[in-house]
Amino acid sequence: MSKEAVASNLSEASKVLILTHIDPDGDAIGSVLGLGLALEKLGKKVVMACQDPVPKRFLYLPGSQRIVPYPYGYFDIVVSLDVNDLKRLGRVYHEELFGHLPLLNIDHHITNLHFGTINWVDPEAAATAEMVFELLEEMGAPIEPDVATCLLNGIVTDTQGFRTPNTTVKTLETALRLQKAGANLYQIMTQAFNHHSFNMLKLWSKLLARVQLKDGIIWVDKPRSILQELELEEDHDHGLINFLLGVDGVKIATIFTEKPGGEIDVSFRSVPGVDVSTVAVKLGGGGHPQAAGCRLKGDLEEVKKLVLEELRKLL
Amino acid sequence: MSKEAVASNLSEASKVLILTHIDPDGDAIGSVLGLGLALEKLGKKVVMACQDPVPKRFLYLPGSQRIVPYPYGYFDIVVSLDVNDLKRLGRVYHEELFGHLPLLNIDHHITNLHFGTINWVDPEAAATAEMVFELLEEMGAPIEPDVATCLLNGIVTDTQGFRTPNTTVKTLETALRLQKAGANLYQIMTQAFNHHSFNMLKLWSKLLARVQLKDGIIWVDKPRSILQELELEEDHDHGLINFLLGVDGVKIATIFTEKPGGEIDVSFRSVPGVDVSTVAVKLGGGGHPQAAGCRLKGDLEEVKKLVLEELRKLL
Repeated sequence: MSKEAVASNLSEASKVLILTHIDPDGDAIGSVLGLGLALEKLGKKVVMACQDPVPKRFLYLPGSQRIVPYPYGYFDIVVSLDVNDLKRLGRVYHEELFGHLPLLNIDHHITNLHFGTINWVDPEAAATAEMVFELLEEMGAPIEPDVATCLLNGIVTDTQGFRTPNTTVKTLETALRLQKAGANLYQIMTQAFNHHSFNMLKLWSKLLARVQLKDGIIWVDKPRSILQELELEEDHDHGLINFLLGVDGVKIATIFTEKPGGEIDVSFRSVPGVDVSTVAVKLGGGGHPQAAGCRLKGDLEEVKKLVLEELRKLL
Repeated sequence: MSKEAVASNLSEASKVLILTHIDPDGDAIGSVLGLGLALEKLGKKVVMACQDPVPKRFLYLPGSQRIVPYPYGYFDIVVSLDVNDLKRLGRVYHEELFGHLPLLNIDHHITNLHFGTINWVDPEAAATAEMVFELLEEMGAPIEPDVATCLLNGIVTDTQGFRTPNTTVKTLETALRLQKAGANLYQIMTQAFNHHSFNMLKLWSKLLARVQLKDGIIWVDKPRSILQELELEEDHDHGLINFLLGVDGVKIATIFTEKPGGEIDVSFRSVPGVDVSTVAVKLGGGGHPQAAGCRLKGDLEEVKKLVLEELRKLL
C-alpha cells in the first residue's frame, strides 16, 4: 500500500525536503511543520519550504519561522504535502535540482494528478494533516506537543472546525489523540477563527450588504477599492464564504476577489451532492467537491458572468 | 458522590418529569431529549417540559415534538436540566404539584443555586449534555442514535462547535463516542451554525456597521426597528457575539437587544481570565465566566450606559 511505501522510504532517508503549495492554508503549513518537526526528532535533517510566506495567523505554530522560500542543500528525498498539481509548488520545486530524487506525493485532494514517484492520495481524509498523523504512527514516531499542535491546526482549519461533511469518526479520533498528545484545541480554534481586526467587521458589513442570491447560488464580489478604503492589507475574509453557504436554500456560494494585475480569485463552496471542483478544474483551478477555487484573468463583471453561467449548468 | 446518587434515584423511579429553563438553547433541548428518550428505552414513563417552545432550528431533533409547555400526570421524581435557579424553570414547575417530589438538579453552571434534593453541579463540564452522557453510562443505559444526536447537539451548541475554552479532552472524547453511537456531526453542526435566512445576512450587515469598540469592550445594540425593517421574526443572531469577541484586543463582547415591553436583553462573552458572570449576577442574571446574560427594564441608552460602566470596572 502506498502509505507503507511512503513510510519505509521516509524511514530510510536521512535528508528530507518538505514542500507545500503556494498561497498556503492552515493544513499546508500544519502538515509541513508536523511532519518536519517529527522527522527531526527521529534524527533526520529537514528543510521545509513554501514559495509564499506563512499567513500571519499561523506564525504562532512551533517552527513556523523555519519554513523558507528558497530551499537549498543536498537531499535524499522530496515530500510534497497537500498539493494536487506539481505546478502548485511554484518556484520551490526545481526540476533541475530535485527532478532526480524520489518524490513522495501525500495529499487528500480528489483532483490530485499523481505526479510523484510514490503517490499516497486519500480523498476520504479530511485534511492532509490527518494523513501525516497516520504516517507518523506507521513510522512509530512519537507525537510530541509541538507536532500535535501543528497537525491539529491542519485538521481544524481544513474542516472549518469540524464543520465540513468529511469530518469522520477517524477525523475526530485523530483530533482527540492530538489533543491528548498536548495540542491546545482552544488556542488553535481561536487562532483560526477568532482573530480578526475591527476593520474586518466593517469589511463583512460592506460585503454582506452586496450579497446576491438567485436560484440556489449566492455570491458577492470584493472589489479592491473596498479593501483599500478599509486599509486592510490581507484579504483573508475569515469564513465569510461558509457563512454565505449557510443561508437557507443555498447550494453554491461564491466569492469573487479582485487581485492586483487584473486577476480575479474565485472561491466556491457547495452543499454535499453538488461538486464544485468540476467547475474549478474546468476553469483552470482545483480543490474538493465541496470547496474549490480558481483564478481568472479579466474584468470583474465578465468573470462573474462567465463563472455564474458555469455554476448554473451544475444545478 | 452526587452523580451516583442521581443515577440510583433515577434507576428506581418509574415516572419521571424532565424540565429545563425558559428560553431554551441547544444544550437545554438536547439534554432533555437525550435523557428522556434514553429513560424511555429503559421502560420508564417520561414527560418532558419547557415553558417556551423549542427553537425552530432544533425541531429536527428526534422527539422535539414531545416537549410540552404544561406538564401533567403523576410522577415519582422531577429532573431539572441545565438550570441554575429554580425561577428559570418558569411556569412548568409548580411548587404545589411537584414540591413534595425529589428534585434532581443536574447542571454545569457555576452560578447554580443548589435548589434540588440532590444537586449534581459540575462547572467543569462543557455542557449539561456531557453530564447526561456520563449519567446514562453510570446507569448502564444504551446510547442509541437518537439519544446520541440529542446529546451531541447539546455539546456542539454549548461549546460553539468545540471552540470554547472549556472544550476538554473529556468533551471531545464524549463527542467522539456519540458520533460512533450514530450521531451525525455534520447535520448537527449545520443545524446549529449554518442555517440562517438571507435577511439574517442583511441583519449582520446592519449590526456590524453599528459596532463600537473602546478599551477592550466591544458592543452593539439591536433596536427592534432593525428587526422589523428586515421582517425577522426571531432575533437569534447566529453567533454574532462570538464573532465580535474574536476582534483583536477585545476582552468583553456585549449585545443589547431591545425586547417588547420595554426590556433589554443583554448578552456577555469574555476571554478566559475575565469573569462576566459576576456582572450578570449583579444585574439579576446568570451564566458562565465566559458566557453570561441578564435582562433589564429600561430605555436602551440608559441600560447601555449602566452595563458598560459595570463592565469597565471589571477590566
